[in-house]
Amino acid sequence: MRFDEAYSGNVFIKSHPSYEDAQAVLYGMPMDWTVSYRPGSRFGPSRIREVSIGLEEYSPYLDRELEDVKYFDAGDIPLPFGNPYKSIDLIEEYIDSLMKDNKFPLGMGGEHLVSWPVMKAVAKKYPDLAIIHMDAHTDLRTDYEGEELSHSTPIRKIAEHIGPKNVYSFGIRSGMKEEFEWAKENGMHISKFEVLEPLKEILPTLAGRPVYVTIDIDVLDPAHAPGTGTVDAGGITSRELLASIHAIAGSNVHVVGADLVEVAPIYDSSEQTANTASKLLREMLLGWVK
Amino acid sequence: MRFDEAYSGNVFIKSHPSYEDAQAVLYGMPMDWTVSYRPGSRFGPSRIREVSIGLEEYSPYLDRELEDVKYFDAGDIPLPFGNPYKSIDLIEEYIDSLMKDNKFPLGMGGEHLVSWPVMKAVAKKYPDLAIIHMDAHTDLRTDYEGEELSHSTPIRKIAEHIGPKNVYSFGIRSGMKEEFEWAKENGMHISKFEVLEPLKEILPTLAGRPVYVTIDIDVLDPAHAPGTGTVDAGGITSRELLASIHAIAGSNVHVVGADLVEVAPIYDSSEQTANTASKLLREMLLGWVK
Amino acid sequence: MRFDEAYSGNVFIKSHPSYEDAQAVLYGMPMDWTVSYRPGSRFGPSRIREVSIGLEEYSPYLDRELEDVKYFDAGDIPLPFGNPYKSIDLIEEYIDSLMKDNKFPLGMGGEHLVSWPVMKAVAKKYPDLAIIHMDAHTDLRTDYEGEELSHSTPIRKIAEHIGPKNVYSFGIRSGMKEEFEWAKENGMHISKFEVLEPLKEILPTLAGRPVYVTIDIDVLDPAHAPGTGTVDAGGITSRELLASIHAIAGSNVHVVGADLVEVAPIYDSSEQTANTASKLLREMLLGWVK
Amino acid sequence: MRFDEAYSGNVFIKSHPSYEDAQAVLYGMPMDWTVSYRPGSRFGPSRIREVSIGLEEYSPYLDRELEDVKYFDAGDIPLPFGNPYKSIDLIEEYIDSLMKDNKFPLGMGGEHLVSWPVMKAVAKKYPDLAIIHMDAHTDLRTDYEGEELSHSTPIRKIAEHIGPKNVYSFGIRSGMKEEFEWAKENGMHISKFEVLEPLKEILPTLAGRPVYVTIDIDVLDPAHAPGTGTVDAGGITSRELLASIHAIAGSNVHVVGADLVEVAPIYDSSEQTANTASKLLREMLLGWVK
Amino acid sequence: MRFDEAYSGNVFIKSHPSYEDAQAVLYGMPMDWTVSYRPGSRFGPSRIREVSIGLEEYSPYLDRELEDVKYFDAGDIPLPFGNPYKSIDLIEEYIDSLMKDNKFPLGMGGEHLVSWPVMKAVAKKYPDLAIIHMDAHTDLRTDYEGEELSHSTPIRKIAEHIGPKNVYSFGIRSGMKEEFEWAKENGMHISKFEVLEPLKEILPTLAGRPVYVTIDIDVLDPAHAPGTGTVDAGGITSRELLASIHAIAGSNVHVVGADLVEVAPIYDSSEQTANTASKLLREMLLGWVK
Amino acid sequence: MRFDEAYSGNVFIKSHPSYEDAQAVLYGMPMDWTVSYRPGSRFGPSRIREVSIGLEEYSPYLDRELEDVKYFDAGDIPLPFGNPYKSIDLIEEYIDSLMKDNKFPLGMGGEHLVSWPVMKAVAKKYPDLAIIHMDAHTDLRTDYEGEELSHSTPIRKIAEHIGPKNVYSFGIRSGMKEEFEWAKENGMHISKFEVLEPLKEILPTLAGRPVYVTIDIDVLDPAHAPGTGTVDAGGITSRELLASIHAIAGSNVHVVGADLVEVAPIYDSSEQTANTASKLLREMLLGWVK
Ligand SMILES: [Mn+2]
Ligand SMILES: [Mn+2]
Ligand SMILES: [Mn+2]
Ligand SMILES: [Mn+2]
Ligand SMILES: [Mn+2]
Ligand SMILES: [Mn+2]
Ligand SMILES: [Mn+2]
Ligand SMILES: [Mn+2]
Ligand SMILES: [Mn+2]
Ligand SMILES: [Mn+2]
Ligand SMILES: [Mn+2]
Ligand SMILES: [Mn+2]
Repeated sequence: MRFDEAYSGNVFIKSHPSYEDAQAVLYGMPMDWTVSYRPGSRFGPSRIREVSIGLEEYSPYLDRELEDVKYFDAGDIPLPFGNPYKSIDLIEEYIDSLMKDNKFPLGMGGEHLVSWPVMKAVAKKYPDLAIIHMDAHTDLRTDYEGEELSHSTPIRKIAEHIGPKNVYSFGIRSGMKEEFEWAKENGMHISKFEVLEPLKEILPTLAGRPVYVTIDIDVLDPAHAPGTGTVDAGGITSRELLASIHAIAGSNVHVVGADLVEVAPIYDSSEQTANTASKLLREMLLGWVK
Repeated sequence: MRFDEAYSGNVFIKSHPSYEDAQAVLYGMPMDWTVSYRPGSRFGPSRIREVSIGLEEYSPYLDRELEDVKYFDAGDIPLPFGNPYKSIDLIEEYIDSLMKDNKFPLGMGGEHLVSWPVMKAVAKKYPDLAIIHMDAHTDLRTDYEGEELSHSTPIRKIAEHIGPKNVYSFGIRSGMKEEFEWAKENGMHISKFEVLEPLKEILPTLAGRPVYVTIDIDVLDPAHAPGTGTVDAGGITSRELLASIHAIAGSNVHVVGADLVEVAPIYDSSEQTANTASKLLREMLLGWVK
Repeated sequence: MRFDEAYSGNVFIKSHPSYEDAQAVLYGMPMDWTVSYRPGSRFGPSRIREVSIGLEEYSPYLDRELEDVKYFDAGDIPLPFGNPYKSIDLIEEYIDSLMKDNKFPLGMGGEHLVSWPVMKAVAKKYPDLAIIHMDAHTDLRTDYEGEELSHSTPIRKIAEHIGPKNVYSFGIRSGMKEEFEWAKENGMHISKFEVLEPLKEILPTLAGRPVYVTIDIDVLDPAHAPGTGTVDAGGITSRELLASIHAIAGSNVHVVGADLVEVAPIYDSSEQTANTASKLLREMLLGWVK
Repeated sequence: MRFDEAYSGNVFIKSHPSYEDAQAVLYGMPMDWTVSYRPGSRFGPSRIREVSIGLEEYSPYLDRELEDVKYFDAGDIPLPFGNPYKSIDLIEEYIDSLMKDNKFPLGMGGEHLVSWPVMKAVAKKYPDLAIIHMDAHTDLRTDYEGEELSHSTPIRKIAEHIGPKNVYSFGIRSGMKEEFEWAKENGMHISKFEVLEPLKEILPTLAGRPVYVTIDIDVLDPAHAPGTGTVDAGGITSRELLASIHAIAGSNVHVVGADLVEVAPIYDSSEQTANTASKLLREMLLGWVK
Repeated sequence: MRFDEAYSGNVFIKSHPSYEDAQAVLYGMPMDWTVSYRPGSRFGPSRIREVSIGLEEYSPYLDRELEDVKYFDAGDIPLPFGNPYKSIDLIEEYIDSLMKDNKFPLGMGGEHLVSWPVMKAVAKKYPDLAIIHMDAHTDLRTDYEGEELSHSTPIRKIAEHIGPKNVYSFGIRSGMKEEFEWAKENGMHISKFEVLEPLKEILPTLAGRPVYVTIDIDVLDPAHAPGTGTVDAGGITSRELLASIHAIAGSNVHVVGADLVEVAPIYDSSEQTANTASKLLREMLLGWVK
Repeated sequence: MRFDEAYSGNVFIKSHPSYEDAQAVLYGMPMDWTVSYRPGSRFGPSRIREVSIGLEEYSPYLDRELEDVKYFDAGDIPLPFGNPYKSIDLIEEYIDSLMKDNKFPLGMGGEHLVSWPVMKAVAKKYPDLAIIHMDAHTDLRTDYEGEELSHSTPIRKIAEHIGPKNVYSFGIRSGMKEEFEWAKENGMHISKFEVLEPLKEILPTLAGRPVYVTIDIDVLDPAHAPGTGTVDAGGITSRELLASIHAIAGSNVHVVGADLVEVAPIYDSSEQTANTASKLLREMLLGWVK
């Protein structure tokens, strides 16, 4: 006899009460143990849920309401602290089960490394999967200080797994020289600094294809997302990010899963970033889950 | 024998010492008791005054100085805590007296509900009043959880009072579906997302008319106004808001009163929002009080 | 198929999965709408749960572990925003059901007014109920600005309901002169400033009696509990409050319910107060639920 | 026609409306320009006034109410930024006028240097003045980096002015070796670390004498007063400071003026220090103004 | 035997170990004693160094790496607290030595006044020096409250020293009417509000000339730089500032020195401003030191 | 040609310029990668150095000045991020070198695990070493989630290494039941809750023995040390901790090394904890290095 949680802040606002007939499943991946600089994203999913109760249920951008989509907030995947190997195995396993049940996976990080096992699991079902990646950072390292499981490696891993030509990065403004060179040499797409304009050019070329979208909140300028571990000046506005989500929604790609990662509440004065994340998730749900 | 307060932070900087020969009267409405999510705007007016001492007295936008306008800061209207009914009566009564004395009323909120009795009082004097409303939110609800006096209802109230066709909302990016529909069906103007461009189109149609301007600080993006109760991503910049104030100043409308509401210091790291509000008020005084 | 929540921060750590065989029920009362000065305690229960995952499960004070007590965290009672009348009715109704099911009610506020309907419901079952009240404030007003439902009135209400002689306040360092006088004239016990020593003197006189304990976190000095609406210097240490909880645990009174109220996360730098509250709740559970 | 300010936060709560029949005058000295480490106390007086509206008007310590004393809050003395010489002249001049009018001067800093001109002015009227000084720091330097007007010199200055034997410092836990030696060699009293116990011993020796009390808020431990420029561990509790104020109130000394300095809002999370300062001022008013 | 400091946060990341063969010298000027409103920039240089360890060493804007430039971080110039006269003498003396050794001076403030002695020293070596100044403020006062050494005077001083026609200000949105008029009358260039576009127009006219660039971080909008003493709405984005640095790098001017001033960590929630400053310094080093 | 750093905040205040003739060596161990709950202590050492410039150089407790002890601040040991194995090897190696050079090692954490390799290295030189451990937590786990290198295991490791009978823990108020039982069964000393009184009883029994003292800042109550990862109510005051340091200084034990760990600046509003840590280090240097 728990109180109904739809507006409690324990689940994302208006979470559907049952898994079975949900189209999409929202889940948290509270892991930040490979983060080198400023950890804290492990608390991201719970804070996003907490502030989601302040969210308006209607999107004037998409003219659609939260009750038009059935999504189930499954809570946070329990991950073993400090063990990235076991953590990514558990995530992959969970996404495998969602894929089997034909659910749209909508993940909340945690650090960006969590996207790697998710994308791997989604690629099993969709062999010609393409990745749309929005981030300040290339995330194309092979390793960080000798460790291949790092929040700076997930895009390299998926690029090697499904082929660099199938990965499209946008808004990148930071990385090692070697990472940019590797991308160039291997035919991976990188749009530096901008998101919306290059995205609009590329979307038609992906028409009909299954696409997974992974958004690192730090693609936003620190003005728009102070609450993340690695703030980096010169980013895009939340308005451009919203428009980019809507551009994907209005295109002919087939979004088959998505995530939003790296929200870190401890650096988030005024809870501005968590609120923005909760609005972005609403638009992702309403625009991409069909 | 109180010390002169012109630069004390207890009044808005350079407040004229007497009410009698002032053109404009600045007053606070420290009420936030109908706020559902994050209260705190009751402390807005006093913090804006406090930071106003850091304000330059000259506007390079308008080439005008504070001493070119005589305004009297009357302090905060004493409002009975927790009682919105009596509070709005007291506000209306006070504005009635300002109208009688031919003062330009320039109000500081407090929650947005405080604008309702002000607009009502101003409309008594100016029967063909138009409202320019800048906000992230429609504020067109008939009630909130059954209560008609709520910070989500003031625009509905004034729209029904003076006719929806006389109300022009700008920058709106949040609201219930029903609110947008009601506006549409009743001929009320709503510009979604943008302020400056649609405003420039509409101003000529209002030439010569008396206009009251109500600005909810959350029309700004959270990057520009973190210090408010309901932050909502995708807003405009402070630069666009300044330009909008100047567009009105340069038009042929007759501004007969204005307010700036919803500044909440507790969420305002670096006092950024209070400082911005104090600059906006300077531009409103210099641009609109003639 | 929700993930197990025992360590998720959505429930108090190690919450038992079922209501039926639980001895105690933990519940939140997220209400702060009668608060005059600094609201925010509505977010107290969820933040206490969130930080409870950092809590050690063993008490070296009591040599007892959380798994020695079966408690069920029921979540937050959904309360109608801004309506104290309906809110307290809903709380009373819920506690009535807990009483019927022979559960130990352990509440988390919210503002102190929420204790009034709880105590009233508990008193139905235990007619000779005594109240132990720890607070910086008397909370003995008849009304606040004419409103009888206020966070400054709950102790007056219960005192009039069960008789002032059955109410024992400790640690009081703030109130109106009239409140102290009313207490004195009506035989109600008030220990000013101190908690532990006077409590030790009074506990033997209550031996065998059913006792409800209501703790306002502001009984602690602001040094120990900055995260509350009404900080008031000169309070007790968290060490004295822990010892007071243990003194009750070691006495012959029969604790039949309890609450901890007024934690307000927005003022709680370093989450110190929420962490303290979560430790206090552990000691209350382990010391008082038998 | 300004609104009544008694509860506005612009004056200390319940400030009497007129200077003429006030017993005491409260005034701010918003100066911090000689501060070497962390400035910010210039904003102390206004924040103390702002939070004073949350203060209970009755003291259960002294069984006295604010309306039992007539005090007038004169606002902040306008001081020329960056010019300590002219600032202290202006302060001295103002206190001279208060002395002439037989007002009890109750000052709010600002940095501790502001106490020097006040004490000098008070000493003109009371030639056998004694000083009670509570502080973490000796403040006995002759100069700081060659500058004799520094917040580390006021006690040296008054000690040389009225004779070191008439100065009694309490709670001192920081200073240069030379300062402690100078005090010893010149017969000035310093109680290291403790306040209440040594004060109780000394008060009888001062019976009947005019005494000025200067309290640096940093005499409190940083736990009790984080909001000050120079936090220094190992200080006293707010409880001990309250008891010390009451000890003076209950003694036979004749308090002829007092101040409370060094509150710096920018470091004051939860406004804990400002709230404590406002309570201390209430007790000083009720205990010392007779 | 100190540990290598290249990644310690005690020096700017990858600082070259020796002064002798360095092309550029980075140094801090931790002075803020003439600041009237909100001091704190004296801690700017050390915080910028601290966060620089999170900086990527490669610039995707300039396709250049930090190891492509040899720069030596000399630490902070020890400045006598509270004494602006001696401080600026010490700064000038130090820059004289850098000029003699043919080093590119790259300074970190501190308040803007520190740029005055630097520019004076650089002008000795380069008689036809031009100044590019980016700021929210004119900084053209002759004095502040009678004091000619103020953070509002450095541009006036250098303009009078090398001739107003050689000074180009960009992004100005605040100042006294007299300052704008003085600039106009004396042929000094001021671009109001904008930086990038007017800069692009002016750079060709400066081709071949030695240029010193002084950037006040408050040229950025408060959204992009909350961590400064004088936040002023309506500023440029960090993206525009980066592009402006790159425009200079790509032009034919000969940058002979530069500084970045007014970062104040105490107002810098999420350390956003310090991180931005560290990125700007990387771009200045990679773009301007050749 | 670096500027002298003695007062720069880059080294602990008044650090001696050379290693060779220093009695003590101060060093940072910026590691927090095994921390389960709230990381951030990796930034502790640099913040402690930064605030140390505000420290008075004389101790009125010990009547000794910093220049009476020669200590060299070596900076932070460069530790490989995310690799606790290699990190503790590097630390041990460094302490070995200090031991060989007869330096008194004074370490700053970082998480508590860093003390393990230090104590191991010190024990090589002093076979009959005893450990004095002050902490809120037992730190006696064999592993955390299967990982033996965790900040909850260092005391278990040293206890097993030198024999549990040689380890004395004080102030412990948190831990698993098994940890307390293991201590009891193996003759290790644990003083629950208190530090000063039990310490005074035990010091005579250690007379003449070499002792290493490891202080976890969380032994302080959260009121006195909010800036740490695991705040736990009911701790001791900074006054008791200072007195405990002085009690050791005044005893006949032979302190041969010490550390202070777990200061985490991100949670440290007002920099209170860093300031306290810097004062504690001064007292440790002046009291223990002879
Ligand atoms: Mn990423
Ligand atoms: Mn990223
Ligand atoms: Mn509104
Ligand atoms: Mn709004
Ligand atoms: Mn209460
Ligand atoms: Mn209370
Ligand atoms: Mn002092
Ligand atoms: Mn002091
Ligand atoms: Mn400037
Ligand atoms: Mn500026
Ligand atoms: Mn420990
Ligand atoms: Mn610990």
